Amino acid sequence: MADRADSLNVIEIKLPNGATVVDAGIKATGSLEAGRLMGEACLAGCGSVGWTEIHFGDEVHPGVRVVVDRPKAGCMASQYAGWAVSLDDDGAGSPYFAMGSGPARALYGHEPIFEHLGYAESADEAAIIFEGSKLPTEAVAEKVARDCGVTPENLCMLIAPTASLAGSVQIAARVVETGLHKLHELGFDLDAVLSGYGTCPVPPVAKSDLRAIGRTNDAVLYGGTVWYAVDCEDADVERIIERVPSSSSKDYGTLFYDLFKRYDGDFYKIDPMLFSPARVIVNNVRSGRVFTAGRLDGEMYMRSCAS
Amino acid sequence: MADRADSLNVIEIKLPNGATVVDAGIKATGSLEAGRLMGEACLAGCGSVGWTEIHFGDEVHPGVRVVVDRPKAGCMASQYAGWAVSLDDDGAGSPYFAMGSGPARALYGHEPIFEHLGYAESADEAAIIFEGSKLPTEAVAEKVARDCGVTPENLCMLIAPTASLAGSVQIAARVVETGLHKLHELGFDLDAVLSGYGTCPVPPVAKSDLRAIGRTNDAVLYGGTVWYAVDCEDADVERIIERVPSSSSKDYGTLFYDLFKRYDGDFYKIDPMLFSPARVIVNNVRSGRVFTAGRLDGEMYMRSCAS
Amino acid sequence: MADRADSLNVIEIKLPNGATVVDAGIKATGSLEAGRLMGEACLAGCGSVGWTEIHFGDEVHPGVRVVVDRPKAGCMASQYAGWAVSLDDDGAGSPYFAMGSGPARALYGHEPIFEHLGYAESADEAAIIFEGSKLPTEAVAEKVARDCGVTPENLCMLIAPTASLAGSVQIAARVVETGLHKLHELGFDLDAVLSGYGTCPVPPVAKSDLRAIGRTNDAVLYGGTVWYAVDCEDADVERIIERVPSSSSKDYGTLFYDLFKRYDGDFYKIDPMLFSPARVIVNNVRSGRVFTAGRLDGEMYMRSCAS
Repeated sequence: MADRADSLNVIEIKLPNGATVVDAGIKATGSLEAGRLMGEACLAGCGSVGWTEIHFGDEVHPGVRVVVDRPKAGCMASQYAGWAVSLDDDGAGSPYFAMGSGPARALYGHEPIFEHLGYAESADEAAIIFEGSKLPTEAVAEKVARDCGVTPENLCMLIAPTASLAGSVQIAARVVETGLHKLHELGFDLDAVLSGYGTCPVPPVAKSDLRAIGRTNDAVLYGGTVWYAVDCEDADVERIIERVPSSSSKDYGTLFYDLFKRYDGDFYKIDPMLFSPARVIVNNVRSGRVFTAGRLDGEMYMRSCAS
Repeated sequence: MADRADSLNVIEIKLPNGATVVDAGIKATGSLEAGRLMGEACLAGCGSVGWTEIHFGDEVHPGVRVVVDRPKAGCMASQYAGWAVSLDDDGAGSPYFAMGSGPARALYGHEPIFEHLGYAESADEAAIIFEGSKLPTEAVAEKVARDCGVTPENLCMLIAPTASLAGSVQIAARVVETGLHKLHELGFDLDAVLSGYGTCPVPPVAKSDLRAIGRTNDAVLYGGTVWYAVDCEDADVERIIERVPSSSSKDYGTLFYDLFKRYDGDFYKIDPMLFSPARVIVNNVRSGRVFTAGRLDGEMYMRSCAS
Repeated sequence: MADRADSLNVIEIKLPNGATVVDAGIKATGSLEAGRLMGEACLAGCGSVGWTEIHFGDEVHPGVRVVVDRPKAGCMASQYAGWAVSLDDDGAGSPYFAMGSGPARALYGHEPIFEHLGYAESADEAAIIFEGSKLPTEAVAEKVARDCGVTPENLCMLIAPTASLAGSVQIAARVVETGLHKLHELGFDLDAVLSGYGTCPVPPVAKSDLRAIGRTNDAVLYGGTVWYAVDCEDADVERIIERVPSSSSKDYGTLFYDLFKRYDGDFYKIDPMLFSPARVIVNNVRSGRVFTAGRLDGEMYMRSCAS
């Protein structure tokens, strides 16, 4: 991305300690293609992100298609935004907080979810992707590099705000991961998931990060579709399939931004069962059977884009 | 593919005689992306295979898009699974049989269809793609290499079963070839076909190869669409257009697996006119006219996926 | 493209003065993929062209998807066919005339539109794309090279007729540019346009260039959709949005070929407001609002393909 900074509208920043920052939407304008590449970077080489269009009746929306052939490694050990990078002092006297995605997470490996994943890596280089609107500083780089066991010169940090072109694309590209995380929450063994394929509309950029959190979540919850190939007993799928799509949640049917306000801005009060694609198809390769649940709701998605 | 074996979930095997096997679904799990690349390898550089989605009303299915700009060479002299590779003894006392696709076919060149194609090649390296569930042995490599006029070290054999992730994708990617073969059977001059473009759903993996043969055929017969650009007299198209789509066959309308059983498992008793995409569009660049025949049948395709 | 001449069905010609011509549809057959690459070459590295399918009800048509993250530079300073390359004598006693697209335009920089763009470049190499059916000669190369400030050896000229496979694709790929040019005509500040995303059916090849001009225009006017991300005041969008789509023109609703005849073959008598995609969506990232206008008209598009 740094090599194509001009055409991607990103800015490469070399911090004094040698760490690289790729700004894809803070001082930089960023771009759709930068978002696609960030989404792909999050998958750590385990999948690809391409363009597609999502159809709601006659309405057509730009979207992404995500194909992940090592879903547990690519989505859970890398793409899932599970690393809360937090500093009391970012070096300029302010605190720093951002959720980190990407291959750096498996080098760190101390998030609670890694206890379940049984997955660890070591490497000389690390890449972390932030969804945020504040550029990471040298102190942030220092901390992430140390936690990953790499030198700051070998650390690359990509960042784009939620309310940005690249952010909108990168978050839509989490559709396969979102469904996989839900499967995990429901107790489904992720080692049984062979492949994931998903599509999600890329929501229009919102005026604020908070509004963008609403739209990007609604894009997955009402416009996202995932297909998983699994290898297990049919009963393992039957036990959970109806609970996988977002519609199984009690919070389904209210725009995400409105939910957020209803719960006084406390993200963690929202029903965790809500976080899932709208439609889920599971193909059990052992039995050949196909299980489906949920459906797209174009009306809700379009209300979200209009709100 | 061997260089990306980890992310593709394929296994590279070096046989003692130096031949390479890429296992994309026997001992290996394989992957969607491995299937896409196998489909593209079958086209011998004459076309590409990409992802798309197939819409049946509100139902959306993962699919492939195939674009072939040298259709006779890419599809008929390479992709068509026309080489019956057969050994009485695979070196371990068992017979070996598999249908071969890919660029190796034009090096061998002794299939009957090559008499019509007027196409031959020689090369130092050969690649063959097998749809099968038994790994090719040294004896198989020896035979294929000899028939192609290459050394075993310069032979690569890709293989995936019909009932596998990669198999499902690779077979769906034959949609343009299937229609072209039908055109050939109807006596249409393939030198008049300038380009082919096709889409086909990727069927869910079935529990057995036999069931998978059913689903992959149904995917093309009820869910496949092809567009051909041709340069000929309009009368040449008018003469055959109504007979090109699968619906022109007397065996149309019965799931492929059921047909197979009806004919006591004898593939060759099935009406050869059945093997064609559901919908066919022909653009004659000489007259500018567009001819269409057939239509998708989502209900049949979904019945196939559910059976 | 020259390196892949065989698989693309293009012919590379080296003129005595060292200039390169890539013939993608005159003596050469050309191909869909050659058209895609020509479309991408027109964008000068500022965007990409991929395949997609366009849905009109149950009808599905091959199409292109264009993603442009530097729309003003990529579309207006490069892709727009604005350079009228004209010679009284092409070196063989005939006049030469062709409209040129591509990065060479910014090196020349003397078209009237460049006064508005405030954009200029210099480079050692130049690439120009012609929509035409007469191969450019040494004299043409000489003129273009001189106007671009490069030597003929460093000039590459790509050409395909309107009525050709590559022409059909390359012109459909102008959908984002067509909408952008309309925005410019309506007085919208193109510096406010951050990104463009568009889809357009690839029309079947027509029997003559004149008929092909009809079909390729109709493809954009009745089948093209564009999404723009802009950063401006909402009032700037509200002022123009209803006038952006083709349906805002008095000449909308008549097939382009018929319009052409109605105006006695005088292209410039056609209402300039007609030249725009059928459907336009604008996302103002400053306010987060989404503005839409126009709609696809599959019936008109299919009438165009059948005429």
